[in-house]
Amino acid sequence: MLNFEFQCPTKVIFGKDTIKELSRLIPENAKVLMTYGGGSIKKNGVYDQVKNALKNHTVIEFSGIEPNPKFETCMKAVEIAKNENIDFILAVGGGSVLDGSKFISAAIKYNGDAWDILTKSTPVVPPFENPMIKDAISLGAVITLPATGSEMNAGAVISKIEGDEKLAFGSNKVYPCFSIIDPETTYSLPVRQTINGIIDTFVHVMEQYATIDVNTPMQDYWQLGIIKTLIEEAPKVLANPNDYDARANIFWCATCGLNYWATLGTVGDWATHMIGHEITAFYGLDHAQTLAIIMPRVLEYQKETKATKLSKMAYEVFGYKGEEKDAADFAIKETEKFFNSIGQKTKLIDYGVDKKEAAAKVSERFKERGVILGENQKLTPEAVYEILNRC
Amino acid sequence: MLNFEFQCPTKVIFGKDTIKELSRLIPENAKVLMTYGGGSIKKNGVYDQVKNALKNHTVIEFSGIEPNPKFETCMKAVEIAKNENIDFILAVGGGSVLDGSKFISAAIKYNGDAWDILTKSTPVVPPFENPMIKDAISLGAVITLPATGSEMNAGAVISKIEGDEKLAFGSNKVYPCFSIIDPETTYSLPVRQTINGIIDTFVHVMEQYATIDVNTPMQDYWQLGIIKTLIEEAPKVLANPNDYDARANIFWCATCGLNYWATLGTVGDWATHMIGHEITAFYGLDHAQTLAIIMPRVLEYQKETKATKLSKMAYEVFGYKGEEKDAADFAIKETEKFFNSIGQKTKLIDYGVDKKEAAAKVSERFKERGVILGENQKLTPEAVYEILNRC
Repeated sequence: MLNFEFQCPTKVIFGKDTIKELSRLIPENAKVLMTYGGGSIKKNGVYDQVKNALKNHTVIEFSGIEPNPKFETCMKAVEIAKNENIDFILAVGGGSVLDGSKFISAAIKYNGDAWDILTKSTPVVPPFENPMIKDAISLGAVITLPATGSEMNAGAVISKIEGDEKLAFGSNKVYPCFSIIDPETTYSLPVRQTINGIIDTFVHVMEQYATIDVNTPMQDYWQLGIIKTLIEEAPKVLANPNDYDARANIFWCATCGLNYWATLGTVGDWATHMIGHEITAFYGLDHAQTLAIIMPRVLEYQKETKATKLSKMAYEVFGYKGEEKDAADFAIKETEKFFNSIGQKTKLIDYGVDKKEAAAKVSERFKERGVILGENQKLTPEAVYEILNRC
Repeated sequence: MLNFEFQCPTKVIFGKDTIKELSRLIPENAKVLMTYGGGSIKKNGVYDQVKNALKNHTVIEFSGIEPNPKFETCMKAVEIAKNENIDFILAVGGGSVLDGSKFISAAIKYNGDAWDILTKSTPVVPPFENPMIKDAISLGAVITLPATGSEMNAGAVISKIEGDEKLAFGSNKVYPCFSIIDPETTYSLPVRQTINGIIDTFVHVMEQYATIDVNTPMQDYWQLGIIKTLIEEAPKVLANPNDYDARANIFWCATCGLNYWATLGTVGDWATHMIGHEITAFYGLDHAQTLAIIMPRVLEYQKETKATKLSKMAYEVFGYKGEEKDAADFAIKETEKFFNSIGQKTKLIDYGVDKKEAAAKVSERFKERGVILGENQKLTPEAVYEILNRC
């Protein structure tokens, strides 16, 4: 096991009918900026629940934080927050709203060009130490989409319209002080978002599980436990969107898929995410769509480094009975089969993207930036070309 | 899944050569009370490492916190801390030192008879809300024994010499602000303590796992993942006490066995602990010895309520291939067999205690206090008599 340092100060309030707890969670005298997205919270009742809980608070609203939240949008919120002397941000929505709000909370207190926070930032992993971010506005969340895990970590991904960029930052100053998770708020999710969330969680775990084995059996069981739960619960929630337990189990998997509880002391990869972000930046695919396309090919390309873990996964998750030497291939095949079984397509062409063009564009960008990826630092721009050319 | 609320502010610093981090973790101007036990830290080098890390701090020492830490001993530390205007407590040692230090940190700030903290306290589970404890002195830990999990929770168990009492309290004010876990400090543990720690962790998990099934597959996988890891790693560490990875894996299991990460949203039992505390109070058996004796008999007595979980455990952990109807019995038998296999005896008579006398004394005490135990609140004093009479 590797050495690690970890601290997550976020209070989680999980379960039915928990949004009303907002009234005690936000200081009474706080001036609150309530951030949200395109208005789905007005259709599913979440907006009303929040406003009702905060009827004795001073609340200013900022809506329009889009999927893959844009720097340009967030900076408008920063201006409003500064003018209004906001001292608490409440993010209401999915991971994009929360990621945008994390950036807003840091940018308000940042002296200089706030885009620096993205370009000059440190790795987005615990303990999320980032000397650039000295302070941030207090932040809480009502999270309504099981996917990013943003509700219990200190990372965020922000896109910039100008230049088609999508970059991550992390800082322990932007941990939400609380996150409310009411699985009932997910009953009304469009099927596509339910599927995306399951894929996103699955890949978050795999980016941390399917890497170099450093002898961490408990963490392995925990990570594979999340994956087994997703595989078991996904069909239930797709068959019956109002199945409370299945929704609750999937949401808790999503949160625990990226709160690092299951992965401390292990080695991370994150190549799939890095490549995926570029595909989203260039072609606008959903984040989870890019992950489902890229991850199986990354696993194949890095099979040698990942063999021990993939083999363990084949036996533990997919009930593999064959020879050890074919186990890793089996795990990769079954993973892609699972993605397809819940309706996620896994080829670039399925989304109208030419693989050669994508391979050229993304690898060129990594070459410009001098980026090399993978848990073994072997995914050069040429390797990325090769991987995307197989997608 | 049940609703839950959870927040653990403890920073964990895990790994080799981490004690030196103390110098940055404790405020420079703090006046530190360093608490420890009988002096084993002077033999294994931990004392020197701590003193060296704190060479620029003001440190006052308080030694002699015993296993099953005594109220009477702790109150001496409270007096010293008050006289010396201590503003930070550093517990160095095992769970008893840390539990005692949690009590000391709360008692310093408590107005009134500090024994009230134990007798008038609320349940010892997250979110550890306890209106009696309004404040406590900041507390950090260097934890050297993988067992109690005290390093990442806000509970403590304290004994009183007068009246042979052993009681628990919890308060979110006594979460350690940091816990340093260096698995190398456990190389020199006596075999008996290594075994006790494994049993303690195993039973912590079982008290939370083997209860009513409320449809929490991910939590089940995590809890069984801890148990599988213990079963795999225990023989390694007993064969080679200096096996770093095995020591690290067992320590992280111990911490995660009672930091509630794996059990949020589930139903707890804790009958084995409650009965065990009385056996320790009356007869002085090690905590883990009482657990190994009592748990198998509690599982048998409550088999009906626990059947679903025990059955799952038989298949997942012990590779059971037989009929469903006999699975729970199989899991109980294999559990006891594991305890015996690592050298833990599981009958009262093995420790020179007469079962009828113990059954009478403990059930009488629960009758006096009006205590009823178990996840289904069915373990009356009569049931406790019956259970102990089978031990």
